[in-house]
Amino acid sequence: MSDCIFCKIIEGEIPSEKVYEDEEIVAFEDIDPRAPVHVLIVPREHIPTLNDTEPAQDGLLGRMVLVAMRIARENDVADSGYRLLINCNKDGGQEVFHLHLHVIGGRYLGPMVQRA
Amino acid sequence: MSDCIFCKIIEGEIPSEKVYEDEEIVAFEDIDPRAPVHVLIVPREHIPTLNDTEPAQDGLLGRMVLVAMRIARENDVADSGYRLLINCNKDGGQEVFHLHLHVIGGRYLGPMVQRA
Repeated sequence: MSDCIFCKIIEGEIPSEKVYEDEEIVAFEDIDPRAPVHVLIVPREHIPTLNDTEPAQDGLLGRMVLVAMRIARENDVADSGYRLLINCNKDGGQEVFHLHLHVIGGRYLGPMVQRA
Repeated sequence: MSDCIFCKIIEGEIPSEKVYEDEEIVAFEDIDPRAPVHVLIVPREHIPTLNDTEPAQDGLLGRMVLVAMRIARENDVADSGYRLLINCNKDGGQEVFHLHLHVIGGRYLGPMVQRA
């Protein structure tokens, strides 16, 4: 956990543009935005991948989704549209192994995945 | 709601390959799969878009995510990787206006969104 970049962002050891935080969730701007709005929503707890969540974390997962929706609203893309994504492991394209939910919007986003 | 294709699938009025169901959630194969695994997870309740969910539905949203993870496991793509997506409204690419979560896996999926 000590060399997890998202843990360091959560702790303020690495600077970021935080847009939301509460006792269990932090949200900050993606440093490589793919669209006008691109924010990452992460649990404070270091959970490497979605596979590492437990049934009792349903509330946490749902609140991450609700924070993403709130961020879409605050950025005026709720009506125009947005996409939420969780990438898990290699085929999904997960790059940082601290669970994170992307909220992306502000333009038409194209296909959900590359065509095979 | 009466002409909602997903409501009709949930009710069995339109055939589908269901892979999971409980009292609040149904999951079925996408009829236009983008990868070897492509399943849609939907609430039984007709909720048009993510914007129409309420804070009290955090548990439902989280359980939809957990069902997606379970489906990834059952299809042996949890380790190789997968992607969860919720598309909201036009820019997100939402096509059916009954809230649904995609779980997609079984090959490398490429970028999360088209480059601008």
